[in-house]
Amino acid sequence: MLSDVEICRNTTLTSISAIAKQAGLLEAEFETQGSHKAKVSLNCLKRLAPNQTGKLVVVTAITPTPLGEGKTVTTIGLAQGLAKLNQSVTACIRQPSMGSVFGVKGGAAGGGYSQVAPMEELNLHLTGDIHAVTAAHNLAAAAIDARIYHEQRLGYDDFEARSGLKALNIDPNRVVWKRVMDHNDRALRMVTVGKNEPGKTINGYEREGGFDISAASELMAILALASDLRDLRQRIGRIVLAYSHAGEPITTEDLQVAGAMAVSMKAAIEPTLMQTLEGVPTLIHAGPFANIAHGNSSIIADNIALKLGDYTVTEGGFGSDMGFEKACNIKAQASGKAPDCAVIVATLRGLKANSTHYNFLPGQPLPESLFVDDHEALVAEFENLKWHINNVNQYGVPAVVAINRFPQDSDAELATLKAMIEALPNQVQVAVSEGFAHGGEGTRELAKKVMAQCAAPSTFRPLYSADQCLEEKLMAVAEVGYGAGSVTLSDVAKQQLQQFKQQGLDDLAVCLAKTPLSISTDGTIKGAPQGFDVPIRELKLCAGAGFVYALCGNVMTMPGLPEKPAFMKLDLDDEGNIVGLS
Amino acid sequence: MLSDVEICRNTTLTSISAIAKQAGLLEAEFETQGSHKAKVSLNCLKRLAPNQTGKLVVVTAITPTPLGEGKTVTTIGLAQGLAKLNQSVTACIRQPSMGSVFGVKGGAAGGGYSQVAPMEELNLHLTGDIHAVTAAHNLAAAAIDARIYHEQRLGYDDFEARSGLKALNIDPNRVVWKRVMDHNDRALRMVTVGKNEPGKTINGYEREGGFDISAASELMAILALASDLRDLRQRIGRIVLAYSHAGEPITTEDLQVAGAMAVSMKAAIEPTLMQTLEGVPTLIHAGPFANIAHGNSSIIADNIALKLGDYTVTEGGFGSDMGFEKACNIKAQASGKAPDCAVIVATLRGLKANSTHYNFLPGQPLPESLFVDDHEALVAEFENLKWHINNVNQYGVPAVVAINRFPQDSDAELATLKAMIEALPNQVQVAVSEGFAHGGEGTRELAKKVMAQCAAPSTFRPLYSADQCLEEKLMAVAEVGYGAGSVTLSDVAKQQLQQFKQQGLDDLAVCLAKTPLSISTDGTIKGAPQGFDVPIRELKLCAGAGFVYALCGNVMTMPGLPEKPAFMKLDLDDEGNIVGLS
Repeated sequence: MLSDVEICRNTTLTSISAIAKQAGLLEAEFETQGSHKAKVSLNCLKRLAPNQTGKLVVVTAITPTPLGEGKTVTTIGLAQGLAKLNQSVTACIRQPSMGSVFGVKGGAAGGGYSQVAPMEELNLHLTGDIHAVTAAHNLAAAAIDARIYHEQRLGYDDFEARSGLKALNIDPNRVVWKRVMDHNDRALRMVTVGKNEPGKTINGYEREGGFDISAASELMAILALASDLRDLRQRIGRIVLAYSHAGEPITTEDLQVAGAMAVSMKAAIEPTLMQTLEGVPTLIHAGPFANIAHGNSSIIADNIALKLGDYTVTEGGFGSDMGFEKACNIKAQASGKAPDCAVIVATLRGLKANSTHYNFLPGQPLPESLFVDDHEALVAEFENLKWHINNVNQYGVPAVVAINRFPQDSDAELATLKAMIEALPNQVQVAVSEGFAHGGEGTRELAKKVMAQCAAPSTFRPLYSADQCLEEKLMAVAEVGYGAGSVTLSDVAKQQLQQFKQQGLDDLAVCLAKTPLSISTDGTIKGAPQGFDVPIRELKLCAGAGFVYALCGNVMTMPGLPEKPAFMKLDLDDEGNIVGLS
Repeated sequence: MLSDVEICRNTTLTSISAIAKQAGLLEAEFETQGSHKAKVSLNCLKRLAPNQTGKLVVVTAITPTPLGEGKTVTTIGLAQGLAKLNQSVTACIRQPSMGSVFGVKGGAAGGGYSQVAPMEELNLHLTGDIHAVTAAHNLAAAAIDARIYHEQRLGYDDFEARSGLKALNIDPNRVVWKRVMDHNDRALRMVTVGKNEPGKTINGYEREGGFDISAASELMAILALASDLRDLRQRIGRIVLAYSHAGEPITTEDLQVAGAMAVSMKAAIEPTLMQTLEGVPTLIHAGPFANIAHGNSSIIADNIALKLGDYTVTEGGFGSDMGFEKACNIKAQASGKAPDCAVIVATLRGLKANSTHYNFLPGQPLPESLFVDDHEALVAEFENLKWHINNVNQYGVPAVVAINRFPQDSDAELATLKAMIEALPNQVQVAVSEGFAHGGEGTRELAKKVMAQCAAPSTFRPLYSADQCLEEKLMAVAEVGYGAGSVTLSDVAKQQLQQFKQQGLDDLAVCLAKTPLSISTDGTIKGAPQGFDVPIRELKLCAGAGFVYALCGNVMTMPGLPEKPAFMKLDLDDEGNIVGLS
């Protein structure tokens, strides 16, 4: 079989104008960016408002291996399969992080015959939305340190007299806004900023800081959750950056930087329209990392797609404990639109690899033994798949398991897995998905089962309601969502919870960051663990995004590069084409 | 008079496709990015090669005040003036830095009726070239720290066995590649990276690092100096990032990151086509900051423009000691095309403000007294203008002084200044330029004088030739270029010079970074100082760009935000339009 990039280059793509018009957009409602990308204006939402709202399908997965189980392949494949069945359909996915593209995972455009094209444009820069988030985020960070510096340098009275601004008296030890970068750069997790040559102060006030990956920026969550540009601007204005020496929160409005941040993100609020290899319109918006971030495609992109056609296929990152949980408890609550069906992606190699019968390392070739029939390994990890089916069902969302077929998969094992799923008591459906090898033709069965499940009446129920207190919400996600036996808050987290309660913030949602490699907070525990503890070490207020962010276990919000990073394969050939991207 | 952004919004722009075709590009040679921007493919250069090469006009200035003297206004105004005289003309300018847009200076699109439009797109993100430079630069930085971490963590032997890569044995104290960010963020000038919680090492190896502004990245200079994508890729591969414990240089090829860096910059190598308010095609390429960087528009953009029409108008940042010096000694040497004429922008307020008769602070309103006739102040600083005229002439480039008129300027003072210039013994020409108030109509006289000067035969002579040693080149720029009496190398700089000589790098050019606010390295010394010392504190090897970079005096390569930054004025109005940008 050809490589992803070869398949992509061998496909004749439709002009993006034609794709936009086929999707139902008017000429004035999009602006092309080259031949294959277009920014979609939010003006279309007003015109489309009277249209019926389509069905929302969320693609999720079993607990994944570090290489991923092909969720994007399945999302794109399913959208193409629905199109083969003459349904009007739009896919909505997140913009890949260059951190991942250059790091471990490589590109995130799907693969084989189920790709968003051109994959090199999707995977690199795209239309600059992540860069805009990064720029806006770091502007606020520069503004904080500059303000601390000038107020300290001049003294509060002189500062006020000279600048005509009110001194904010920011406590340098209580700056809660880090900087961000869209790279996997572990050396930036903890940094000392504002250092000076001995005896000098021109570089500002020395303090401890750090960088997160850009996808973990509160601004990325705001982009994903905002309903329009005005809402974006208002949410940005609610961001708390630091606290004063008197303990008062310092917002972006206090620093007069909220407007400029919104200006930097003005173009980013428009989703980017692309197409799949079979010409299905695909909206790209907001950022990845459903482990350490909100990690779902945007409400704005969904809202456009839901009005353009019968089906909107989107994905929530990682397993159903991660992106799907956030899709239900944060996104659906904000948008008012619940998922009509969940597709749970499972793979033979993922189940077997997670069974602990194999040694499976990212960046290394898969062990050959993984492709030999191994009923025992499959059964060992089947509990994990069952857990995800039950998890989806507890939200009242009907499920279809998509077994994402890899070329080396054996028919016998596929049949075994299918039979095991069909024997379950749930109303779960199952289909082998061959989107990778055959595109939409390979997902017809999956598409039919998704359509059938979407026809069922919705009984959606999130895990918590806004009027519960923050502690109850954290417990709900950990104990009901993950199946934990207990939640242990660190002393710091307890204090923060108390503080947020006093600030009257109990109506916010909660966004938990944890490893995606286990349902628990310990990445080495596979299967369907029960009764484990969820240690919450720290909370962060994201008042603009509308949630309190909880760091669980030893999760880190800035990944690192592995020993042999994906970037080593990348280069330009003699014709200037990109090689080594997958 | 209307504000810049109002003038821009009130102007009906031509579609960028029409501009591109008028300029002489074929449909296949550009890709539109929305209605008003297009990326120009380098393929056009081959087709256009047989065309005659046009005249290259470089706009420079007197020693500027921190607000700038209107060099971009004059560049755009002059291009429009040449078009009024039915000349085929393209302007080539640099992409503005968001650091400046949000910091002190504001936008860099020109102003009044001589602007590149839409100014908000030019000033914010544009087509993402600076972001691509930033991303490529920081990828290499992440790669260095990751490699140090993994080699230290595993030990060299285990590292080699596990990864199949050769251990590089990088000396953490000799990493010469900093990180970059396109913000004015002084707190990042000196940072400690790789910090860990006590007893842990998961964030890597602690070492001292720092950030420059993105425009100062060697990659930006490479973008400006490369002849094509292949040259870009090769130059990137020559970058020295660090030295090993054995003292061997570690390049991007050693880290296998050069290919990925070029991939990240693949789109950035194409200049962005925009238009002036009067529809003159304008190519935007590479980055600003001619004080701390190479700071000229790219050779690629110039090469396209020179083949498209009779006149190419471009600018070199700051005074003629800064961008123009680099245009002659670095850029023209690399491109083989010398400037045919230099335009020296002077303003009454700039000359008077620099005379030290006034107290002039960036971010503060201009003192009223500046607009009262003050012959004495004008005469006091006239020496500075004379210096720049002589400086341009010593390169064998004919000059035209453009007195950039501001609304408050008095006719009497303008006449005085003009007469003083006309009385000079040089072959200098002078014209009052009213591009700001009247667009191309206001620069007809200037355009005519530029055309006349361009007709003179070229006697171009740079200050040094490649075969001189690095020390002689530094002396040439300092003593002949600036008129210094001496050059003092720090001990560090002396060692570095010795080292570069041993490495066989004497054939490189030199790029001096110093304050733009004085011809000397002390920003408080105005006029035309003589006999001063140029202290060089540090040298940096930019083997990919092809020069050794010298830090003079106390110049800093990361600016800081002022007490009341420009971003405070920026916001979105109720219709979502950007307000406060100028």
